[in-house]
Amino acid sequence: MAGGAQDDRSVAERVFAIADAFERGDELTLSEVARRADLPVSTAHRLLGEWVAWGGLLRGDDGRYRVGMKLWRLGVRQPTARKLREAARPYLDDLLEATGEHVHLAVRDGLGAVYLERLSGPGAVRVISDVGTRLPLHATGVGLVLLAYAPSGTLEELLAQKPRKFLPNTLTSEKELRARLASIRATGVSRSVEELTRGAFSVAAPVRDTAGDIVAAVSIIAHAERAGEPQFVLGVRMAARGITAALVSGR
Amino acid sequence: MAGGAQDDRSVAERVFAIADAFERGDELTLSEVARRADLPVSTAHRLLGEWVAWGGLLRGDDGRYRVGMKLWRLGVRQPTARKLREAARPYLDDLLEATGEHVHLAVRDGLGAVYLERLSGPGAVRVISDVGTRLPLHATGVGLVLLAYAPSGTLEELLAQKPRKFLPNTLTSEKELRARLASIRATGVSRSVEELTRGAFSVAAPVRDTAGDIVAAVSIIAHAERAGEPQFVLGVRMAARGITAALVSGR
Repeated sequence: MAGGAQDDRSVAERVFAIADAFERGDELTLSEVARRADLPVSTAHRLLGEWVAWGGLLRGDDGRYRVGMKLWRLGVRQPTARKLREAARPYLDDLLEATGEHVHLAVRDGLGAVYLERLSGPGAVRVISDVGTRLPLHATGVGLVLLAYAPSGTLEELLAQKPRKFLPNTLTSEKELRARLASIRATGVSRSVEELTRGAFSVAAPVRDTAGDIVAAVSIIAHAERAGEPQFVLGVRMAARGITAALVSGR
Repeated sequence: MAGGAQDDRSVAERVFAIADAFERGDELTLSEVARRADLPVSTAHRLLGEWVAWGGLLRGDDGRYRVGMKLWRLGVRQPTARKLREAARPYLDDLLEATGEHVHLAVRDGLGAVYLERLSGPGAVRVISDVGTRLPLHATGVGLVLLAYAPSGTLEELLAQKPRKFLPNTLTSEKELRARLASIRATGVSRSVEELTRGAFSVAAPVRDTAGDIVAAVSIIAHAERAGEPQFVLGVRMAARGITAALVSGR
């Protein structure tokens, strides 16, 4: 498509396509941006120039482009992320200290779980999640919790997109998913082993806002051999409850 | 200008003007965005629609617009903010615990200091800085530290813009500013009392990166009556040194 003539995107859509190129990859060359944005190099070059002039992107001495301070400053104004991260900070710190593994806070964004925070102990298992990452709902502990309390129709929409089987344990069929979601709603906690990451298990629990709605999920991802230890379920539940209380009290 | 015909901004510039409206104010109506972006309401409405479709902004049930998850996710990929915040986190936590006042981490962005982090004790003095805020270099502790080590020409550029006198103690003349910057370079610390905020004093110190360049500043803003207590200078110096070490060691 990158010829231009058949490109029926609006100018704004092409401006945004430039930014989307940075969703994966922190430093990109002009040709990488052009390819990812599906734009001719000349168009990508011109639009990158506009982004840099605005401050949303910056161009390093090495010629590579990176996200600039303007986008960071706008991003921190996102009200949900800001409120949840502030409320969660002390609870996530405690959970990290108690476990030394990965501690996650995530919100639902369509059919994905967006990681608002990830804290990690030095010996934690290797994972693909990171702050700002968006992972599919069906394959992560936080995602399944968020899916369990999502508006009706969300599961059907997810199934229609043929959920990917990352590992043999990944839940992909309607039957498996409905059973897990029912269990999460019954117990208030999601437990999984090696559904997204080899050698890892996860425990996740829901966070409620002042109206009682589920607005986020907290999880721990730890080495699979620790799955029997009791403090993970306890810790995640307590952290989720504490964040809920912090949101309700506004502190 | 909002008539449109005389608007010689490019489409991309008008797209960006929409986002700039959110630099101050977390929730804006259509007419507020149009006014701040200096665009006709119809144009603002159309461009807001493109922003919402992309996910960079979102429109609440109340009809107000807010920053969306997409901008938050892009923003967290800003390499400098990310690296510095991660390296600084434990040191800023310790500084908060030791003082119970405001703890700041900031970087220079042109003639402004951008606050990458702000932690605050429950009884801290009232300040205008916040995460993502950009304040003038000459009026803040972190700003003066960053100015002291900025490329030559930065002070001249700042003076040409007639620095604002926020309070009687705000440094605005070339003579005052040069004396303070020389003192910061000689002592490695900036101390000020009521230069931006009534009832507050600040202590700030520079953070170096692996190349030895000053890349950030740490500060405490505390109640003016505590200005004589020795732990503030000590704490800020130690935190700045610790963050430098964390950046150098890459941990």
